[in-house]
Amino acid sequence: MTGTVVVPHAELLGAVASVFAGRGLARDRAATAAEALCHGDLTGVTSHGLVNLGRLYLPLLDSGRADARADLVVERDLGASVLADGRRALGLWSAAQAVDLACARAARHGVGVVALRDATHFGCAGYHAARAARRGMVGLVVSNCGGQRIARPPGGAVAMLGTNPLALACPAGDGHPFVLDMSTTVVPTGRVRQAARAGEPVPEGWLVDDDGLPVTDAGAFDRGEAHLRWLGGAPETGGYKGYGLGLLVEVLAALVPGAAVGPAREALTGDRGADDGGADDGIGVTAVVLAPDALRGGFAGDAAGLFTALLACPPLPGADPVVYPGWHEGERAAWRRAHGVPVPERLYEELLAEAPELREAG
Amino acid sequence: MTGTVVVPHAELLGAVASVFAGRGLARDRAATAAEALCHGDLTGVTSHGLVNLGRLYLPLLDSGRADARADLVVERDLGASVLADGRRALGLWSAAQAVDLACARAARHGVGVVALRDATHFGCAGYHAARAARRGMVGLVVSNCGGQRIARPPGGAVAMLGTNPLALACPAGDGHPFVLDMSTTVVPTGRVRQAARAGEPVPEGWLVDDDGLPVTDAGAFDRGEAHLRWLGGAPETGGYKGYGLGLLVEVLAALVPGAAVGPAREALTGDRGADDGGADDGIGVTAVVLAPDALRGGFAGDAAGLFTALLACPPLPGADPVVYPGWHEGERAAWRRAHGVPVPERLYEELLAEAPELREAG
Repeated sequence: MTGTVVVPHAELLGAVASVFAGRGLARDRAATAAEALCHGDLTGVTSHGLVNLGRLYLPLLDSGRADARADLVVERDLGASVLADGRRALGLWSAAQAVDLACARAARHGVGVVALRDATHFGCAGYHAARAARRGMVGLVVSNCGGQRIARPPGGAVAMLGTNPLALACPAGDGHPFVLDMSTTVVPTGRVRQAARAGEPVPEGWLVDDDGLPVTDAGAFDRGEAHLRWLGGAPETGGYKGYGLGLLVEVLAALVPGAAVGPAREALTGDRGADDGGADDGIGVTAVVLAPDALRGGFAGDAAGLFTALLACPPLPGADPVVYPGWHEGERAAWRRAHGVPVPERLYEELLAEAPELREAG
Repeated sequence: MTGTVVVPHAELLGAVASVFAGRGLARDRAATAAEALCHGDLTGVTSHGLVNLGRLYLPLLDSGRADARADLVVERDLGASVLADGRRALGLWSAAQAVDLACARAARHGVGVVALRDATHFGCAGYHAARAARRGMVGLVVSNCGGQRIARPPGGAVAMLGTNPLALACPAGDGHPFVLDMSTTVVPTGRVRQAARAGEPVPEGWLVDDDGLPVTDAGAFDRGEAHLRWLGGAPETGGYKGYGLGLLVEVLAALVPGAAVGPAREALTGDRGADDGGADDGIGVTAVVLAPDALRGGFAGDAAGLFTALLACPPLPGADPVVYPGWHEGERAAWRRAHGVPVPERLYEELLAEAPELREAG
């Protein structure tokens, strides 16, 4: 049960889509949700891939915390900007929908913003942002974690914010698109729990104890004995910036559409063993898309020139070639689209149990 | 010459405005530029304050690299988004103008974007972003460093990008606005040079040598023996995210309006001793303003609630009270508006030489 099977990409997408459709998602929405979920496995961000089908998305749907049949409801439409109620639709689909709508508005107005409240977990932020890059646009996608509280403000004794992901994508000519996809904490919780499950230590710099001393025992996080750091780490190396970026996401993703926020009165009451307090319900997602082609000529060539110049940067002696965020993911995706997606056997068995037609096809 | 004088804020602004007006800026523009410049001294970000009048802005104007009399020229106006040519107008003023125009558009469209090419150095990014917060809006302001190349891609042997500042501001009810104002490198070059001038070491984590080993000698940076790190530091603690954020700024601030970019063919030719190659001409600045009040009711109260909850977060034993980015700066500004702005004597003498009416007033 520790092996890996290589599944053709289309087959994997089909099976996951069929599982989502079985839970009530319309076919086209199920297909988008499957693509968003499997983006993690396709690009190597396995902490956000198929592993979350049984761990996160099916329980969300089965418990009613996500609504497979909900439509987005536009509450205010100002042309360039739209406020929508996500109505607990599956975030894997609704965030993609928000980006697509933002792209349509950007094509006309140069910028398009769709702010979504009452969303649910959307998977890889980079998948959604990259939908804008496919259309030759620049996509910024942010999500807070609803009322979930994972990370403490610097010097604070109570967790107040989520890991608040942020992604920006931009086309890069014939090359893989630039896709920055990051949590504003040093790593997302998925990376810590992946290490804990594997019984492996985490690098120094990810976790600290109450005294700010480094913790490398991954399991200490869920025992409430260690806290996830902000990007930048200690105050003197910019930890306050990481905290500020977490707040930037909270402002854009949650305050703008009026979603649930981590820092709320209830965060300061009650007793919590671990930092992981509050539920990730009422998530906010905001997509900001810019369409440079609507503003000027020459954008595509300039973008290709910038990212090509980065790839041509001579490496330090002994270092790997210089790349940009999204390049390795693009390489992996191209290979796996052609040759298949490696999936841990255990996950594959879980998927087969939900989608028996995959076994028959195989 | 090592003392400090305390100058009434209005007097300081008046003197700096008069210096800019003497170089040809219209009175109202000179007043805005003075406010932007002295924001550094007012809030305690002294590396970006009055010290740059004689070091940066007057030489820019006197050499013709900045044009005191230039107007912004709108090249494309799509309502919610505007592309403008900055025509080398003083960035201290033109970036403020860009934010104000973005606010006006956001009031109508929910979002307003002004992308500026051929801009010049704009001082504190946070000053400009905070102009949107004053109007109850959310302001994101980014600037690249034009063709200037300061920081190397991870694993790269050549500097390709500037320190690429990013600021986001949001109102916080009756409290000081949230203002995140950060370089995407661990620190801006001004902080390294401040330490070098003072003969002080820099903390471990700011600079590394070619082998990635820590350097604490601040002077090593301008000797080309040490390189500025990206926010996040080493690869395992997120240095790739800091690099990605630097690129996020390069995309939004420079690729969108078609400004000069760091990663260009010429970056890869010629010999440079220090990393600091290329000139910061042709800077790009983009302001993205969101007007949540145009989209929904209750924003101001929600924002106040979020930032108030953060201030109420219990601190760790022995730690200072929990705050958010912009809070300390807001406290300092309030005190200094009432009691005066501390200015190093040497800088004050420089200012008096340029603005003799300050001496007469004093």
